[in-house]
Amino acid sequence: MTTCPVELTANLIRCPSVTPDEGGALVLLADLLGQAGFECTRVDRNGTPNLFARWGAKGAEKSFGFNGHTDVVPVGDVADWTYDPFGAQIDGPNMYGRGACDMKSGVAAFAAAAVDFVQDKQPDGAIILTITGDEEGPARDGTVALLDWMDANGERMSDCLVGEPTCPNEMGEMIKIGRRGSLTAKFTIIGQQGHVAYPHRARTPMAPMVRLMDRLASHTLDTGTDHFDPSTLQITTIDTGNAATNVIPNQVKSTINIRFNDAHTGDSLIAWLRAEADKVAAEFNVEVQMTTNISGDSFVTEPGAFSRMIVSAVQAVTGKTPEMSTSGGTSDARFVKNHCPVVECGLVGTSMHQVDEYVVVEQIHQLKEIYTRILTDYFA
Amino acid sequence: MTTCPVELTANLIRCPSVTPDEGGALVLLADLLGQAGFECTRVDRNGTPNLFARWGAKGAEKSFGFNGHTDVVPVGDVADWTYDPFGAQIDGPNMYGRGACDMKSGVAAFAAAAVDFVQDKQPDGAIILTITGDEEGPARDGTVALLDWMDANGERMSDCLVGEPTCPNEMGEMIKIGRRGSLTAKFTIIGQQGHVAYPHRARTPMAPMVRLMDRLASHTLDTGTDHFDPSTLQITTIDTGNAATNVIPNQVKSTINIRFNDAHTGDSLIAWLRAEADKVAAEFNVEVQMTTNISGDSFVTEPGAFSRMIVSAVQAVTGKTPEMSTSGGTSDARFVKNHCPVVECGLVGTSMHQVDEYVVVEQIHQLKEIYTRILTDYFA
Ligand SMILES: [Zn+2]
Ligand SMILES: [Zn+2]
Repeated sequence: MTTCPVELTANLIRCPSVTPDEGGALVLLADLLGQAGFECTRVDRNGTPNLFARWGAKGAEKSFGFNGHTDVVPVGDVADWTYDPFGAQIDGPNMYGRGACDMKSGVAAFAAAAVDFVQDKQPDGAIILTITGDEEGPARDGTVALLDWMDANGERMSDCLVGEPTCPNEMGEMIKIGRRGSLTAKFTIIGQQGHVAYPHRARTPMAPMVRLMDRLASHTLDTGTDHFDPSTLQITTIDTGNAATNVIPNQVKSTINIRFNDAHTGDSLIAWLRAEADKVAAEFNVEVQMTTNISGDSFVTEPGAFSRMIVSAVQAVTGKTPEMSTSGGTSDARFVKNHCPVVECGLVGTSMHQVDEYVVVEQIHQLKEIYTRILTDYFA
Repeated sequence: MTTCPVELTANLIRCPSVTPDEGGALVLLADLLGQAGFECTRVDRNGTPNLFARWGAKGAEKSFGFNGHTDVVPVGDVADWTYDPFGAQIDGPNMYGRGACDMKSGVAAFAAAAVDFVQDKQPDGAIILTITGDEEGPARDGTVALLDWMDANGERMSDCLVGEPTCPNEMGEMIKIGRRGSLTAKFTIIGQQGHVAYPHRARTPMAPMVRLMDRLASHTLDTGTDHFDPSTLQITTIDTGNAATNVIPNQVKSTINIRFNDAHTGDSLIAWLRAEADKVAAEFNVEVQMTTNISGDSFVTEPGAFSRMIVSAVQAVTGKTPEMSTSGGTSDARFVKNHCPVVECGLVGTSMHQVDEYVVVEQIHQLKEIYTRILTDYFA
C-alpha cells in the first residue's frame, strides 16, 4: 500500500484549520491513522484540539515519535492572494495554500510514511504521532497538553522528530538539533517633566534610556558556542509620545528581545539586565522599571546516533549533507526536549506565514522518503 | 496725573484676548495713549492685531522703546480655575486671571509709566510703544510686523525694554540681557524590517538611533560663555510604535531641542548634527534623515549704560541687585535685538501659562515705579 503524501497535503490544506480551529484536519488524520491500526486519542485541552496516535505496544523500548501541527496562521487579506488559500491548487511545480509549507506537508509526509511503514514492516516497537492544533497560537494547550497527557498515562517516546520546515532555501540543507532561548524585557524609565529651557529643574528619562539601550545593544553576549550562533539582542521599540518640542517628558518605555544560546540561561540574562538597569538608574538618578518574560530557554540535542541517522537519510534522498543547526525562531521542539531527544527535519520554509504560501510538490515525496528511511534505520 | 497700573491691568485682563484675538485690549490701550498725546497706529498684518504708539518727534535721537504683548495663552479647562480667568479678581495680595503676570501687568505698568511721564516731564525725545497680539502664537505677524513697518516708515527706537516677567521667584532679582538660541531637530532612521530571530536579514534602525541620541545627549556643547550658561541639548521624544516583540521595526523617529549660547550659531549646530548623523549612518549602514528648525539664534546686549540704568532703577525700588541673565525661554526680544539694544525687565513669572495665573498687586506698582525711574534717567 502507498499513501500519497501530496494528496494528503491537499486534503489537509482544504481543512480551514486557522488557529485554534480544528477545521477537520485532525479528524481526517485520525481516520487515516485509525484505519492503519493506530490507536488514536483526542487530547483536547481548554478547547484546543490535539491528536495522540500510537501504533505498537505502549512503553515499547523503541518508540519513535513524530510531532507536528495542523493549525495555520490567518490568511490576512484574501484579495492579496493569487490562489485560493484553502484550495491546494497546483501550478507548475508548486502547490499553493495556507499551511502548504508550515506544515501540513510535513504532517502529511510523516503520517503517510508512518502508515505505510507499519503496514509494510510491522516494526518491533512503537510509532507515536503527536499532532496539535495550537502551535501558531499561544501554544499553551497544544504539544504541552499532549506531553502532559502522555506523562499521566504512561506513554513515552524514545526519540522524536518534529516535522517543521527547517531548510532556509534548498531541500536537504539543514536540520535543527536545538533552538536558542528567547527573552523579552520591557523597560520604563521615570524622570521628572520640565521645560527644555530649564533642564536643571527637570530630570530627563531620555538620556538614561538611550544610554541603557546603547549599552545593551552594543554588548557582545558571546561569540557562539559549539552548536550555537552568537546570542543576539534587538531593541524592538522605544516610545515616548511627547509632541511638545519644548517639554522634557517624564517617562519613556522600551522593549528588547534576546535570542540566546547555551552560554546563558534566561535567569542569568535577567540578572545582567537588572544590573545594567541599576547602573543607569544610579548614574542618572532616575527610576528604571523592568519586567521580563522568558518564552523558552535554549536547548540542544547533542549530535549522536539519532541525529546521524537523520543526516544520512537526508543525504541518501537529496544528495546533500544537512547542517545541524540551532538557528531560527522557536518551535514545539522546546517542549518535546523535556520528554526525549528531539531533532527537527522538514521542508524549505521560505514562504511560511506569507501570501501565496506554497510547497514544491516533488519535495513532499522526498520528505516522505526521508522519513521512511529514518524509520527503517531506527527499527533496523 | 497718576494712571493706576493695577486698574489698567484689571481692565486688560477683562479683555478676552486669547491669541490671536484682539479682545479689546489694544483698542483700550490706543484710547489711553491717544488721550495722552501718543500718535497711535494699528499695524495689523494677516489678521494679527498690533499697536504702534509714539510720543514726541519721529526720529528723535533719544527714542525709548517699550515692547510687550496683550495676547494670552488659552485658559485650558475653566473648571480647573478657582477664579474667573477673565475676572481680574483680587484675593489677598494677588490679582488673578489669564495674562495677570504674562504680561498684561507689564504692559499696564509701562503704558501707565509712559503716559504719566510724558505729561509730567515733557522729555526731550520720543517714547515708542510696540504692543503685539501675537507673541504667544506663531509670532510671525506680531513684533516682526511692527519692526518691519517701523523700518518702512522711518520709525526707530534708540533702546528698547521688553516688559516680560523676568524674575524666577522674587521681585527685582533678575533682568535679561539676552537669550539663548533654540534649535529643534527631528531625526528619522530607516533600516529594514525583519524577524528578531534573523537579525542578519534585517537592518535595525534602533541601535543607530540610541547610539546617535546617546552621543548627542552626552556631548558637552560648551561650558558657558561670558554672559551665558552652558548650552543644553534635550531629547524630547523617541517613537517607534512597534507592538510586536518579535519584529525588528523598519524605522524610528526622534526629536531633540538645543538651547544654545553665543559659542554657537544655529547653522554651526546643524552642521555638527549632520556630521554626527552621517557618522552613525555609515557605522550602521542605515539612512538617517534630519530636519531642523532654528526658532532663534542666541543674542546678548553687552552690559553697558543702558543695562546699568535698568539695574540701578530696580535696586532703587526693590533694594535688590538684579542678575543680568540670559537664561530661560525665548521672547520677542529676539526680534527687537535686530533693531536696537534690548533688555527685558519685568515681574515674577512663576504662574505664567498656569491655572490661576496671578500677579502680586503691590508689584505692579513697583514695576511702574521702576519704569518711571528708567525713563527719568534715560532722558536726564
Ligand atoms: Zn510551523
Ligand atoms: Zn509673555
